[in-house]
Amino acid sequence: MPQFMDVHHGMKGITADQLKEAHKADLAIESQENVHFTRAWADPESGEVFCLSEAPSAEAVQRVHERAGHKADEIHPVPLTV
Amino acid sequence: MPQFMDVHHGMKGITADQLKEAHKADLAIESQENVHFTRAWADPESGEVFCLSEAPSAEAVQRVHERAGHKADEIHPVPLTV
Repeated sequence: MPQFMDVHHGMKGITADQLKEAHKADLAIESQENVHFTRAWADPESGEVFCLSEAPSAEAVQRVHERAGHKADEIHPVPLTV
Repeated sequence: MPQFMDVHHGMKGITADQLKEAHKADLAIESQENVHFTRAWADPESGEVFCLSEAPSAEAVQRVHERAGHKADEIHPVPLTV
């Protein structure tokens, strides 16, 4: 399954609980789109949030994020990893 | 040890071998700064590269990347993860 890294801007001040809740909201509905969100990292200072997922397409990733209430600003297929 | 996600722009067309070589160049010198690069993901189409590391500071991450010949464009501390 292809991997994707998506980026959310403007999440300044995000807390550990908010990140956890957002991730839970994704996990609760991700199977609708055959997506799996594996990890997420947040920088509360700059407001950047990075989410790693396995998904059939970037559009599928976005549909889950949108339905969960937090549309991504960038979604990058990341076919290369080390 | 704090975690950091750094981002490189403009790496359009990067190949699997180039990503591997760049990562190897980081690993070869990272101990100079007490940094460890754990993972990296690349999108050859948009040219974005994401590197995850454990490091004492963002400056230490940048010093390794600079010495290895590929300065990061953004370095984000990511104290929150899921």
